Amino acid sequence: MSPLLVRRPAWRHHKGSAPVESEEAVVVEEPLELRLEGQTLTVTLRTPGHDLDLAAGFLLSEGVIDGADDLVALAHVDDPADPRGNTVDVVLAPGLAITRRGKVDRAFFATSACGICGSASVERALRAAPPLPARYQPDPDLVYTLPARLAEAQAHFADSGGLHAAALVNAAGALVLGREDIGRHNAVDKVCGALLRADALPPGPSTLVVSSRLSQELVTKALMAGIPALAGVGAPSSLAIELAQAAGLCLIGFLREGRFNVYA
Amino acid sequence: MSPLLVRRPAWRHHKGSAPVESEEAVVVEEPLELRLEGQTLTVTLRTPGHDLDLAAGFLLSEGVIDGADDLVALAHVDDPADPRGNTVDVVLAPGLAITRRGKVDRAFFATSACGICGSASVERALRAAPPLPARYQPDPDLVYTLPARLAEAQAHFADSGGLHAAALVNAAGALVLGREDIGRHNAVDKVCGALLRADALPPGPSTLVVSSRLSQELVTKALMAGIPALAGVGAPSSLAIELAQAAGLCLIGFLREGRFNVYA
Repeated sequence: MSPLLVRRPAWRHHKGSAPVESEEAVVVEEPLELRLEGQTLTVTLRTPGHDLDLAAGFLLSEGVIDGADDLVALAHVDDPADPRGNTVDVVLAPGLAITRRGKVDRAFFATSACGICGSASVERALRAAPPLPARYQPDPDLVYTLPARLAEAQAHFADSGGLHAAALVNAAGALVLGREDIGRHNAVDKVCGALLRADALPPGPSTLVVSSRLSQELVTKALMAGIPALAGVGAPSSLAIELAQAAGLCLIGFLREGRFNVYA
Repeated sequence: MSPLLVRRPAWRHHKGSAPVESEEAVVVEEPLELRLEGQTLTVTLRTPGHDLDLAAGFLLSEGVIDGADDLVALAHVDDPADPRGNTVDVVLAPGLAITRRGKVDRAFFATSACGICGSASVERALRAAPPLPARYQPDPDLVYTLPARLAEAQAHFADSGGLHAAALVNAAGALVLGREDIGRHNAVDKVCGALLRADALPPGPSTLVVSSRLSQELVTKALMAGIPALAGVGAPSSLAIELAQAAGLCLIGFLREGRFNVYA
């Protein structure tokens, strides 16, 4: 069984039958502490695996780093008190840590001076993200194949139903890479972080495919990574559409076998 | 149409047909700024509506308040610069704000002194939550009716597919109340906050039903509200099961028509 899953006892109930005791595959959830040069930056609950990708993607999407060049070191902390590898430390290029640490706090507490509203939230995201290098709208024939590419990336999903997946698909329709996590934001951070660590950002004409609904935060993450198209199995929110339109990102919702909607 | 939804232009694609231009119902997402006696405590992206319930539920689940008695005032800020009502201010009982403000920051940055791990995370949640007043395991015949109760609460879901729902169902199988939001955490906070504001916590033998997967955070929210059973359409995580077992909360996953699993 995958290390992302553990077995736990459960009682299966089916209407009209007696309950059956069983061992169910369950998604592992553990906290990950991210330290910036020794000091705690954030703690997130995540599915273990690809932790360095997750950390790099989080730092990118929060604006703490702009690219791979900003990373001097990124590694699990070697601490006997943390045998499960739940702590990652990052060292930034000289001088960056002091100026960038505040970005996470500011993002958490960010408010507009003129009264907070959805448009201010969109403007903030637009200011933080670099402009997309080029627009890209995947061909409909390619979009119809995206669910199959996401399924390729979702190797573990069928086992437990508890994992979100995110995948990058290039303009030829090939799966570049996929990542899974109990959290949809984490799955996207893992994809973007893996690309960043491979110095493959921005990735050119390609689509980020996710197994979830499409919120403003996911559009922001795609923009921070310079990915020009985002497709999701679920519905987009009003702010996701507003931000995608303003930034020129192609937004595709309700991606299912044989159908999809293009919103922006 | 519901105020939770807006119409946005989109192109509908169906395999084998030409794309059709349409107006799609889209879930509204807007930021809500929560102020504690005038100072920003947090900003969350949410679906507008039941904002005071959301604020009260958030304060409860973060340990900032213990019950309705701690709330002196809770209202939207009357500010011409915020015509959309996206700011809520809370006034706590005298002296409380100073001691409780730090709880949100501490929760955000909480780490265990002995190395962070899933068990430490469960212990922290157990320490923060009051013990459940009594154990409760809903009868299987009642559990089979929970999807219909959730559907009652999900009045808008069919329109857009973009909203999560949470509902409280009592031991007689009746829907006590339901709330919707683009975020599953927000939907649960709205239910718990509405109960708190009605001075109906703990609610006695009852089940919190959610349209989502079951993470540790959702179990924590149920415990903070004294709700003894949690049922979800999706899969539970390993930490959700661990915390539910330790706290004596009944945890039900994969709740579908005619089937479910009991994990704790």
